[in-house]
Amino acid sequence: MTFEIFEKSQYVALGDAIDLSHHLSILARNRVQSPLKGLQRYFGKPGILSLAGGLPHPSYFPFDKIKVDALASDTFSVDAHGSGSKGTLSWIWSLLSNSKDNIMPISIPKYPMNPEDVNLAAALQYGLAKGLPQLQTIVHEFSMTVYNPAYANFATTLHDGNTDGWNKAVMTLCNPGEGILTSEWTYPSAIASMKPFNVNPVPVGMDGEGMSSISLREVLSNWDEEARGMPRPHVMYIVPVGQNPTGATMHAQRKKEIYDICVVYDVIIVEDDPYYFLQEGPYVHPAQRSSSSTSNPPALSDSDEDYIKSLAPSFLSFDYQGRVVRLDTLSKTIAPGSRLGWFTCNPIFAEKFERQSETSTQQPCGFGQSIITEMLLNWKSTGYLRWLKGLCAQYTQRRDFFIDCLVEKFHIEIAPAAQQTRFIGSERYIASEKLPVTWYSNEKTQERRALFSFVPPSSGMFVWLQFNFANHPKIKEFGQEALEIKLWKATAEAGLLVGPGAMFSANQDEVSFDAPGHFRISFSNAGTDDLKKAVDILAAVLKAFYAN
Amino acid sequence: MTFEIFEKSQYVALGDAIDLSHHLSILARNRVQSPLKGLQRYFGKPGILSLAGGLPHPSYFPFDKIKVDALASDTFSVDAHGSGSKGTLSWIWSLLSNSKDNIMPISIPKYPMNPEDVNLAAALQYGLAKGLPQLQTIVHEFSMTVYNPAYANFATTLHDGNTDGWNKAVMTLCNPGEGILTSEWTYPSAIASMKPFNVNPVPVGMDGEGMSSISLREVLSNWDEEARGMPRPHVMYIVPVGQNPTGATMHAQRKKEIYDICVVYDVIIVEDDPYYFLQEGPYVHPAQRSSSSTSNPPALSDSDEDYIKSLAPSFLSFDYQGRVVRLDTLSKTIAPGSRLGWFTCNPIFAEKFERQSETSTQQPCGFGQSIITEMLLNWKSTGYLRWLKGLCAQYTQRRDFFIDCLVEKFHIEIAPAAQQTRFIGSERYIASEKLPVTWYSNEKTQERRALFSFVPPSSGMFVWLQFNFANHPKIKEFGQEALEIKLWKATAEAGLLVGPGAMFSANQDEVSFDAPGHFRISFSNAGTDDLKKAVDILAAVLKAFYAN
Repeated sequence: MTFEIFEKSQYVALGDAIDLSHHLSILARNRVQSPLKGLQRYFGKPGILSLAGGLPHPSYFPFDKIKVDALASDTFSVDAHGSGSKGTLSWIWSLLSNSKDNIMPISIPKYPMNPEDVNLAAALQYGLAKGLPQLQTIVHEFSMTVYNPAYANFATTLHDGNTDGWNKAVMTLCNPGEGILTSEWTYPSAIASMKPFNVNPVPVGMDGEGMSSISLREVLSNWDEEARGMPRPHVMYIVPVGQNPTGATMHAQRKKEIYDICVVYDVIIVEDDPYYFLQEGPYVHPAQRSSSSTSNPPALSDSDEDYIKSLAPSFLSFDYQGRVVRLDTLSKTIAPGSRLGWFTCNPIFAEKFERQSETSTQQPCGFGQSIITEMLLNWKSTGYLRWLKGLCAQYTQRRDFFIDCLVEKFHIEIAPAAQQTRFIGSERYIASEKLPVTWYSNEKTQERRALFSFVPPSSGMFVWLQFNFANHPKIKEFGQEALEIKLWKATAEAGLLVGPGAMFSANQDEVSFDAPGHFRISFSNAGTDDLKKAVDILAAVLKAFYAN
Repeated sequence: MTFEIFEKSQYVALGDAIDLSHHLSILARNRVQSPLKGLQRYFGKPGILSLAGGLPHPSYFPFDKIKVDALASDTFSVDAHGSGSKGTLSWIWSLLSNSKDNIMPISIPKYPMNPEDVNLAAALQYGLAKGLPQLQTIVHEFSMTVYNPAYANFATTLHDGNTDGWNKAVMTLCNPGEGILTSEWTYPSAIASMKPFNVNPVPVGMDGEGMSSISLREVLSNWDEEARGMPRPHVMYIVPVGQNPTGATMHAQRKKEIYDICVVYDVIIVEDDPYYFLQEGPYVHPAQRSSSSTSNPPALSDSDEDYIKSLAPSFLSFDYQGRVVRLDTLSKTIAPGSRLGWFTCNPIFAEKFERQSETSTQQPCGFGQSIITEMLLNWKSTGYLRWLKGLCAQYTQRRDFFIDCLVEKFHIEIAPAAQQTRFIGSERYIASEKLPVTWYSNEKTQERRALFSFVPPSSGMFVWLQFNFANHPKIKEFGQEALEIKLWKATAEAGLLVGPGAMFSANQDEVSFDAPGHFRISFSNAGTDDLKKAVDILAAVLKAFYAN
């Protein structure tokens, strides 16, 4: 790997916060004539007797053993549309407690026979920010195998979930007054993490694959520091798979284009990729669906190698310069309450993230680390991949069920070619009200009003509806955004909560009133009845809303 | 309570970071004409169907149940010097796996019969920064009962351990370029957390009770902004019980004095109190020890009320203005790997800390929260206090054993009155080499060289040795600090690691070469053999060191 940006760049693309370090090392560095320099080498020396730290003895941890009924890695079918108890609607079936044959019992003693086994004496003690040794190995091998970074000496180190990871990245990579490149519609929490440091989003235009490389080049090449009030950004925040909120997924060619632009303009790419394993594949319209050709995600039943190859590549796989910081989280693949994830990045950044953890979160919770580590050790890597395949099949069912409800409740037409974006996974669907068929009219010939359009997502948890308020009788009076809020309130009053589009705008200061109204709707959590009910509420609200 | 500082003060004693907020609320606030204002009220409305958030369904969490063999709350004797298996040296005995009769089995299902019970479906989901509802209740009642804040509407909210809590306090309460009042010897990690934000320690002199109120008033009343290069500090960091590194404990009168000064100068007190329940009581010299009068900590065998009354009061109990932020951690009372603790403070600060958590750590790990909550619910409050009493008795044994080793290995004299500090808990001990007794000399008449002095601590985990380098043959050549480092290296080379005093100096930029050398020695973790061996190493190294 080349560390070009760190060795040659004219400006150092790192914030003051990069001086974070810990205890002896920070104290030694902060002093001109450091008397403490060189003392670190004694710490951790084998055989040395240490009375240096304030560590309680593990006999004082009030736990002897943790036993967990974990689920087997093949709990969910990999066939999103197969039959049988683990097939269609198994996510309803599985609401009930799991049956005995799905249970994989694991156990974590305080003092195991083999002291190198996962144990509570170590996991519940003060530990390394980078994680339990066994978990370090697991995540490093996982990143190596699945994301295939383009250089050998990449590093992995734990964080407390991607919100924590992103917060640390902002603090380490940015100085106050700088900007961060984001998609024009983006995860609001990512913006909320920057603002307190006076770091602000710089929106980049999007198309059907997420961030547009054309727009990115425009923003960077035309940068006017004075007009913008900030230097050209040197950090990018991006959710490349199942983008939040649009659901867009970026494939290899676009990623390569964006990476190459980032090389030219010396931009560090922070890849926040929680939905990576929810690559559900293209949605197939029910009319085109046959028993042999479902919208089953590809490769779920294939070998591990083929499955990994079927996934959109990570930015890491293009990263010959070490300018990608990938954030992985277990929130969508194991459980959000794990508050556990990891950075994959160059070793210089990794060391800074560790120093930062040492003075804030210290290390992820030992209960979580030990339970998850032991489960992954029991599943083994192929078992974890099996779990991810089963999970993906579940989300594919959910996605298909919810889109099917929309297709059923509304009149759907495929948008003409001119209105199609280069959205991978599906064509844009235009939804209008289903009209009553009477003796004097048939549905096809009646004039219909397009209510909203959407692209069935090929990944993730979200459907991003774009409203056609141009058809609203009061568009001139209120404008797009006011109509969005009115519609959102009417929907909420009718008993359905969705994410209002304006919440996801990276145009913080001036909401563009030309931007069409949007809703972000999540199909990740509700049951089938509720998903169906939500679509019914939406249809009823829209009918009243456009009539007004 | 009066919120005098927030309503009346001339400067707002809060950093920019206080503008932290989350999602809708931050977005709404950041826009001049906010279309999103008022939308929050719909979120969490009972009965409303939400497809707004990206929450996975709990059936996708690969855990059915967690079963924990916790320890009974009376595992350790409350008698530090009693006999029997749970008495003296039970901390050795307890190294072995716990016997069956100490085990308290607890269980956390994913879907309990009573949905209000602690359960994995909720604990492993995205949750509130302030914590699981059951744990919120526990910590709030605990703060109320044990710390007795001087106002009614105090708030409690969780953090990921005191390092995280302190980091959040710095970010929320300070702006870059400001200073924080600390004791002149202090916890280095607390300083390492400030430095990246360009917030620097302002050392305050200490005596035997920790921070000196006289020195504090001097620092604040003589503040010269220009000479100091920063405004008068408005935040204080203090470890009032078993202070790190000196072991000093501050009692009620001093706390009241310091609080009153903070009222005058509008200083927010951040009380970092991890050793609060390790109040071991005064050390009694073996010569004065009788079977009836041991150095047993007071009140361990008394009622809960009397036990609580016997503890040094928290700054909260004086806090009629809401200017104290107390940091509690479970690191020393349950396990460091818990990464769990809580703020007790006024509700305005608490809300800011919650917002800050939402954009960084989100919530403490759900595995840890649920396991600890279920254990505390099983122990009940009296059981947790019983656990704390037993733990305190254990540390009292450890403290006594280690000091006894020093007393045995060195010739100890009580310092003359003029050299005594107002150290609560014990008098200052002066240690010199034990001299050989021959036919022509007896030990008492020989001239002896004082090597170091110390005050046996009445709380915590640390003994703070102060070396008498004035007696060293090369003091003029090297000076105090160089000798400290030489001695530290010699000790490490001989196989013993301790904390070098310079590491704990709040005088970051210029180490005072007049300051005497110190070692911080921890008795919290090692076994009796190792504690004894450590004293032997120290004695041998000192003998060679002073001879040189």
